[in-house]
Amino acid sequence: MPRRPATADPLPAALAAPALVSGAPPAGYHLQFASDNTAGVCPEALAAFAQANTGFAASYGNDDATHTVCDRLREVFEADAEVFFVFNGTAANSTALAALCQSYQAVVCSDTAHVHTDECGAPEFFSGGSKLLTVPARQGKLTTAGLTEAIERRSDIHYPRARAVTLTQSTEQGTLYQRGEISGLARVAHAHGMKVHMDGARFANAVASLGCAPADITWRAGVDVLCLGGTKMGLPVGEAILFFDRQLGADFAYRAKQAGQLASKMRFVSSPWLAMLEGGTWLRHAGHANAMAHRLAEKVAALPGAELLLPPEANGVFVSLPEAAIARLRAAGWAFYTFIGGGARFMCSWATTPEAVDHLAHDIGAALAAG
Amino acid sequence: MPRRPATADPLPAALAAPALVSGAPPAGYHLQFASDNTAGVCPEALAAFAQANTGFAASYGNDDATHTVCDRLREVFEADAEVFFVFNGTAANSTALAALCQSYQAVVCSDTAHVHTDECGAPEFFSGGSKLLTVPARQGKLTTAGLTEAIERRSDIHYPRARAVTLTQSTEQGTLYQRGEISGLARVAHAHGMKVHMDGARFANAVASLGCAPADITWRAGVDVLCLGGTKMGLPVGEAILFFDRQLGADFAYRAKQAGQLASKMRFVSSPWLAMLEGGTWLRHAGHANAMAHRLAEKVAALPGAELLLPPEANGVFVSLPEAAIARLRAAGWAFYTFIGGGARFMCSWATTPEAVDHLAHDIGAALAAG
Amino acid sequence: MPRRPATADPLPAALAAPALVSGAPPAGYHLQFASDNTAGVCPEALAAFAQANTGFAASYGNDDATHTVCDRLREVFEADAEVFFVFNGTAANSTALAALCQSYQAVVCSDTAHVHTDECGAPEFFSGGSKLLTVPARQGKLTTAGLTEAIERRSDIHYPRARAVTLTQSTEQGTLYQRGEISGLARVAHAHGMKVHMDGARFANAVASLGCAPADITWRAGVDVLCLGGTKMGLPVGEAILFFDRQLGADFAYRAKQAGQLASKMRFVSSPWLAMLEGGTWLRHAGHANAMAHRLAEKVAALPGAELLLPPEANGVFVSLPEAAIARLRAAGWAFYTFIGGGARFMCSWATTPEAVDHLAHDIGAALAAG
Amino acid sequence: MPRRPATADPLPAALAAPALVSGAPPAGYHLQFASDNTAGVCPEALAAFAQANTGFAASYGNDDATHTVCDRLREVFEADAEVFFVFNGTAANSTALAALCQSYQAVVCSDTAHVHTDECGAPEFFSGGSKLLTVPARQGKLTTAGLTEAIERRSDIHYPRARAVTLTQSTEQGTLYQRGEISGLARVAHAHGMKVHMDGARFANAVASLGCAPADITWRAGVDVLCLGGTKMGLPVGEAILFFDRQLGADFAYRAKQAGQLASKMRFVSSPWLAMLEGGTWLRHAGHANAMAHRLAEKVAALPGAELLLPPEANGVFVSLPEAAIARLRAAGWAFYTFIGGGARFMCSWATTPEAVDHLAHDIGAALAAG
Repeated sequence: MPRRPATADPLPAALAAPALVSGAPPAGYHLQFASDNTAGVCPEALAAFAQANTGFAASYGNDDATHTVCDRLREVFEADAEVFFVFNGTAANSTALAALCQSYQAVVCSDTAHVHTDECGAPEFFSGGSKLLTVPARQGKLTTAGLTEAIERRSDIHYPRARAVTLTQSTEQGTLYQRGEISGLARVAHAHGMKVHMDGARFANAVASLGCAPADITWRAGVDVLCLGGTKMGLPVGEAILFFDRQLGADFAYRAKQAGQLASKMRFVSSPWLAMLEGGTWLRHAGHANAMAHRLAEKVAALPGAELLLPPEANGVFVSLPEAAIARLRAAGWAFYTFIGGGARFMCSWATTPEAVDHLAHDIGAALAAG
Repeated sequence: MPRRPATADPLPAALAAPALVSGAPPAGYHLQFASDNTAGVCPEALAAFAQANTGFAASYGNDDATHTVCDRLREVFEADAEVFFVFNGTAANSTALAALCQSYQAVVCSDTAHVHTDECGAPEFFSGGSKLLTVPARQGKLTTAGLTEAIERRSDIHYPRARAVTLTQSTEQGTLYQRGEISGLARVAHAHGMKVHMDGARFANAVASLGCAPADITWRAGVDVLCLGGTKMGLPVGEAILFFDRQLGADFAYRAKQAGQLASKMRFVSSPWLAMLEGGTWLRHAGHANAMAHRLAEKVAALPGAELLLPPEANGVFVSLPEAAIARLRAAGWAFYTFIGGGARFMCSWATTPEAVDHLAHDIGAALAAG
Repeated sequence: MPRRPATADPLPAALAAPALVSGAPPAGYHLQFASDNTAGVCPEALAAFAQANTGFAASYGNDDATHTVCDRLREVFEADAEVFFVFNGTAANSTALAALCQSYQAVVCSDTAHVHTDECGAPEFFSGGSKLLTVPARQGKLTTAGLTEAIERRSDIHYPRARAVTLTQSTEQGTLYQRGEISGLARVAHAHGMKVHMDGARFANAVASLGCAPADITWRAGVDVLCLGGTKMGLPVGEAILFFDRQLGADFAYRAKQAGQLASKMRFVSSPWLAMLEGGTWLRHAGHANAMAHRLAEKVAALPGAELLLPPEANGVFVSLPEAAIARLRAAGWAFYTFIGGGARFMCSWATTPEAVDHLAHDIGAALAAG
Repeated sequence: MPRRPATADPLPAALAAPALVSGAPPAGYHLQFASDNTAGVCPEALAAFAQANTGFAASYGNDDATHTVCDRLREVFEADAEVFFVFNGTAANSTALAALCQSYQAVVCSDTAHVHTDECGAPEFFSGGSKLLTVPARQGKLTTAGLTEAIERRSDIHYPRARAVTLTQSTEQGTLYQRGEISGLARVAHAHGMKVHMDGARFANAVASLGCAPADITWRAGVDVLCLGGTKMGLPVGEAILFFDRQLGADFAYRAKQAGQLASKMRFVSSPWLAMLEGGTWLRHAGHANAMAHRLAEKVAALPGAELLLPPEANGVFVSLPEAAIARLRAAGWAFYTFIGGGARFMCSWATTPEAVDHLAHDIGAALAAG
């Protein structure tokens, strides 16, 4: 497997600093803000996973559970979408974009887009060479001006024509696209014969934060395809892809199969989704993660020497800290990335506790105080 | 998701025929012989999955559990192999072959090889165009004569040069390669500067049947890369790739990431493996599946009108049946494929019970008797 | 460059045997039947090439000459086709097929198709993994029965769905598809939502032999895309691609550019075409090549011990000869292939002379007589 | 073919302005500064092309002429390089880079590199997804600081590792890399296990300008692979690729074949090269083009309102002109690009005459004077 040195910020082997919380800290305690994927599986998903393990079921998505989940997603999104499940976010984004673009066409994205900065060229690989045309992000977001510039940058055959645009909701910088921003970008894209893709690895956090209907910030705002994140929500594995324009997903089953993204025992990928969608569990967990991020942001904002890079609108907090403070925090065992968003990034999840947030805030304060 | 009609043999929506077994039959009872992937997760794997859900863990395979499983696999195979986990068998085979071949080179395989007949062009996709050179299988196996012919078929630049050979162990026809057959094929391949890949989707069944050390039919016999099946063994998702020649796997972490095959919450893919490897659980389950297949084969062989196509050496039974009998069996609710191996294919798994085998055998007999 | 050993049949370094013809034989005399591409550039094409070298011209196909040639091709084919020029036949076939298929779809072809046997995996490469589904050829041709079998072979997502069929006219075995055969195959293909591609590397020979209008055996018979061979006709480099269904070629300019197939000084690729199309020069040369093949066939048919494998309908003659005779012919300096079409292949071109044909026939007779 | 609107700067259909030169201007007179590929074939190349048209020759590069040209190139470069010919520059760069990189690795280039800005994603296509990591150019050149930053930007598996660097000599901005600059960049690349690729579309202009041995600014300075431009030098079609590290080119013949880059009548691609290399013809023509560029630069520099963006070191002149002047020049019929290098680009070729340079300079002056 990838050797530890292969990670940008080596994660601490041992867990140093004493815990403030009563009782022993959970395993990997200090890793919890490194990403929302260091958390485990939420109880509801785990129970559904276990319950799915009864008897025999048709494979490759032909089981009843999978069909039920697809129908449920169509209800939640109020749309007769073509729904597919793939294994992870990189695959979801890349296969979906490949369904929108030919190899000689391009995808417009922000220069902070995960597809551009953290997928090791997967979009280029799955599409057979589609180029990503980057636009400087503003608060982590694409702007209509930037999108328009990228589209009109060139019009000759020596430069790939933009065929799709991808938005990340919530963004890699912890911000949110308002419904109007999405429809504004979609209008520009559609006017140029382009399709709109949304990287929704943290879509649940966006819905929970905006308090809108999922449809409002997707197809009603002009999104053609949504990659809906499951793992960061609390699932063990598996993302959903919703083609609101069914035509775009017509042959996607074959594409997913060829791309090594069709699970044989699909019920174990799909069933946990059902539990998340029941009674808004997915939004409750996402809302909790968002709340933890706000709690952390408030405490950090009050610390002299710390500066919030952006107002936290979802489950991530980006803070500008002196190098010395960063070093002390790491020495205290805390794991976090600094190469994303230009500061120290602290992510909250369904599993984050107020105590842990307060502990981290306390240690940040201590690290700053040590001057 | 793929619509039901998308499967070659439509699986029965409802489950007809009354069960012979006492008590209600488990869900999907009649689907159990359709494939070894209609079974669920074995108890040991499920327990390990749940136990892995404690606290927080480093993502992308940097967690301790994953490192432990990799070490354990190295022990089981008595080799310092580079170990990686991917999501399914198609991805395992295709990314591994892509690591052995350039797009302008070729892979030799039998004309019944899963990579050629059931992966929707995935090997060609992941390699960027490597051609599969097929050789007629004998009892589901490649022969040295066939391999040699394929290698020497052409030597000009208008035809791709063979760079790898792939063997399936156990084969798609339920047969096994003896150690000597593997080393014989490997000798031919290596003599031509080729690498040897093994599709081990059912490798456990082979080891259990041959009663040999895993090393004996892999690296000791000349296999360079093994794709070790987990799902058919009883896992929910996830296959292992072992590069016995570490050099071949040097950069594989990047390839897997780009190919959308790197799990963020890797512990849930890897931990269940540990339970399987503890105390030979994987081989006990595989041995049970093999035993069930033998039980079925014996009973079927005794039926007038039924003919075993090949001696069952692993967990699959291939029977030649009259069309009318096939129709009656399906009417009775049984699901099975007929386009693989030229007859009716019945697969057994860790979850198959003697009662179910007897029930199926009884129904086959009845279907035949009905003339 | 490819080392000589890299060719299947090593071509003789020196040119042995004395010439029967008066005067010194032209350079490479004994190579002339090895392929129709060992011939040079016909006088008309060479003159046009030189005449194109006046002053300055817009590059990348924006020059007037290129536009004129495209219009002329539209006239010759009586169709408002989208026309493009690429550098060679492998590129023409592969980029055209890639325009018809997605990576997870398949192309049906005969097992003797050049795209399958002599392009080193180019179709798989340019399409990103499309599989070629082969069908046994009958007299070098696809049959509707074979095409139907390939299409209906499988209908599940584990097997690529056939999206295109490719016919070679004239075939790799020197035979021809009659208009009715083409429309019959096209009807089957279109009925299954497939597109029809024609590999016309030797299309001119077919038209000259059938004496029909180019349209009769292309779009009027259901062909959607034709790759029209220029090199074998007598050009130095460059093939034309005609999309009779303009929609299929809508974005092809970008595909060709990305595929490294857009000539900057396009006028030198396109202008010679104009000379070929003037006054039917292309058909006159093709007719001559066909006549030479018939002359050779008649003489060979009369030789005891030689057997024509197929009736020569275009410019190739395929003869079954004893190994000893083949060896003697090679010793006499003659170069020819034996791994295509199962016998000795002798190709005629615009440059083949009756004397050379008679000389070869004489040497074949002598080789056979030597017993 | 690509419709005229498909070019960034529509080229004037008609040729306006009266010629200053005596006699009628050559065809396309006003297109001559648009690019060095609007010129035709130089006399020496045309003669060689015609002389190559004698008798029959082995195809696919097995002819004697091709082997002779390869040997001659080895002499000129004083290196036992593996030499191949492909059809155009996009193909040369892309196939060469694909030979250096796997799909999950990256290529470092300047943000003005032709491979990044003008090849429609060809490098990504041929490599199957390799990402181009751009670095801001300084005077059109990569700097060791920029290269180092790109290499060390990230070291985790979510970002492709840099495996090659590409330099353009002479650059897209008409500047030159000094020998020391190349060896400095190569030292950094090699220290990181990377290979050095040179895009030599205008390599001849660089050698002519620097007056050095071709080896001095290639393998002696650490270049591993050179794509040597033929078309801009005065050939009709065809570029050479020299692998100074033979190992890197070991299998390239197969790659070129699969990529649709192997000419059947290779002699017509290779023979003209021989004429260019005889007696330094290639450098004489390149030197003339450079001289014309200097002549133009001197005259333009003297014009009030015009500003040279960079000192012209090869055959291109980049001038900053007011929009109004640009419009007047175009109205006068002159074709030139403005989206390359941030100003008006005027390219000179082997065919550019002093009179034409003076005519253009005069019209630029007039356009500026008109205020």
